[in-house]
Amino acid sequence: MPLDKKSLEELFRKLEPEVTTYMNRYDGGHDMNHIRRVYRNAHIILEGEQALHPDTQYDYYLICYAALLHDVGDKKYAAPGEDVSSMVKTFMLSRVDEPNEEWEAFAAKVQIVSTYVSFSTEKKDPEKTKEAISQFPELAIVQDADRLDAIGAVGVGRSFSFAENRHYGMQDGVDQFDVKLLRLAPIMKTETGKKLGMERHERLLAFQKWWQEEAPIPETLAFRSDGA
Amino acid sequence: MPLDKKSLEELFRKLEPEVTTYMNRYDGGHDMNHIRRVYRNAHIILEGEQALHPDTQYDYYLICYAALLHDVGDKKYAAPGEDVSSMVKTFMLSRVDEPNEEWEAFAAKVQIVSTYVSFSTEKKDPEKTKEAISQFPELAIVQDADRLDAIGAVGVGRSFSFAENRHYGMQDGVDQFDVKLLRLAPIMKTETGKKLGMERHERLLAFQKWWQEEAPIPETLAFRSDGA
Repeated sequence: MPLDKKSLEELFRKLEPEVTTYMNRYDGGHDMNHIRRVYRNAHIILEGEQALHPDTQYDYYLICYAALLHDVGDKKYAAPGEDVSSMVKTFMLSRVDEPNEEWEAFAAKVQIVSTYVSFSTEKKDPEKTKEAISQFPELAIVQDADRLDAIGAVGVGRSFSFAENRHYGMQDGVDQFDVKLLRLAPIMKTETGKKLGMERHERLLAFQKWWQEEAPIPETLAFRSDGA
Repeated sequence: MPLDKKSLEELFRKLEPEVTTYMNRYDGGHDMNHIRRVYRNAHIILEGEQALHPDTQYDYYLICYAALLHDVGDKKYAAPGEDVSSMVKTFMLSRVDEPNEEWEAFAAKVQIVSTYVSFSTEKKDPEKTKEAISQFPELAIVQDADRLDAIGAVGVGRSFSFAENRHYGMQDGVDQFDVKLLRLAPIMKTETGKKLGMERHERLLAFQKWWQEEAPIPETLAFRSDGA
């Protein structure tokens, strides 16, 4: 089928329930509602960036598709032996009737943007992520949209959900603030993402302070020396 | 063995690791660290109350034991057919060498305080809880200590942990704020508990506001009408 607005929207509608099913393998902080929030965040950031940079061109559907598919093939959750590096592209093209070169190229772009959304991918080779962003400004938007959902109140909730899912205990959830969450807003790529990100960053800091007040755990359950 | 300071402290040390094992059946928000925080909270509240009401007599070890044992036999987690109404007492006495009447009476008190700590027990029959508190001022302290651990930042963490453990999704965790968490501080029984409780209550309200800003989920992943 030809690659046009109508077919892009039709394929998206077809993929949506499949992604919902796919996300069920994850924890409650990483379910279809995560995708929905990222999709919403991406729209908010896109709007902000278009107002700030009216001359930059964005492929709108690339943003929509990458927001929908960026967690298909997440390394953190991959089954043993599962090849995740081309899962997004393969998944998309397998649902297109007679994919032509245009579809191949679009799916390849969605794959690249989805791959470089990841924070661990960026940590491993920041230059490569930088290059990908200079090639696809859409990546900056989807990346910030995804990371926005890892901080603030939602980030707090996702952190505890992940810790519980892995039976790590709540302290591990809070430890992730320093390990990862508090590193996200400072490296946001878009101005709109950074502004929203810093607000949610402050929320993490406030929560962390509360936690430190409430949660210190006595090493042993000591008795008062007077026993009264 | 006789009931004295030494034997009370010895038995407590013997029960502690058993309670740790027992708590492993629960979720990460309801593990031994919950017991440790409640134990710490109870000591903080006791100190505050003794300063405010120097004439009130408290059985210090009753507070310690009820803090340690109040979740043994939690109805929420009971196995089918498990009789939870006397579990605390039975568990204690089974670890006492030749329990005499004094031990029987002490274990019965720990059982009563443990039973009436529960919010759902209070909701069902508030008068009975009131009576129990007038009989045992220690109950007010352990109850507030336990409820303090259900609100504030720790309450947020426990709410998400419980929701994940039951596969309910994060929204359910936040829904518990209105269903239960925000009802706890206003009915705290001690002045010290209420003061600390209201501070943590405000934290819940702040978190709830953040969540409402960050987490609204689009019903469908709509496209912009202009598609660009």
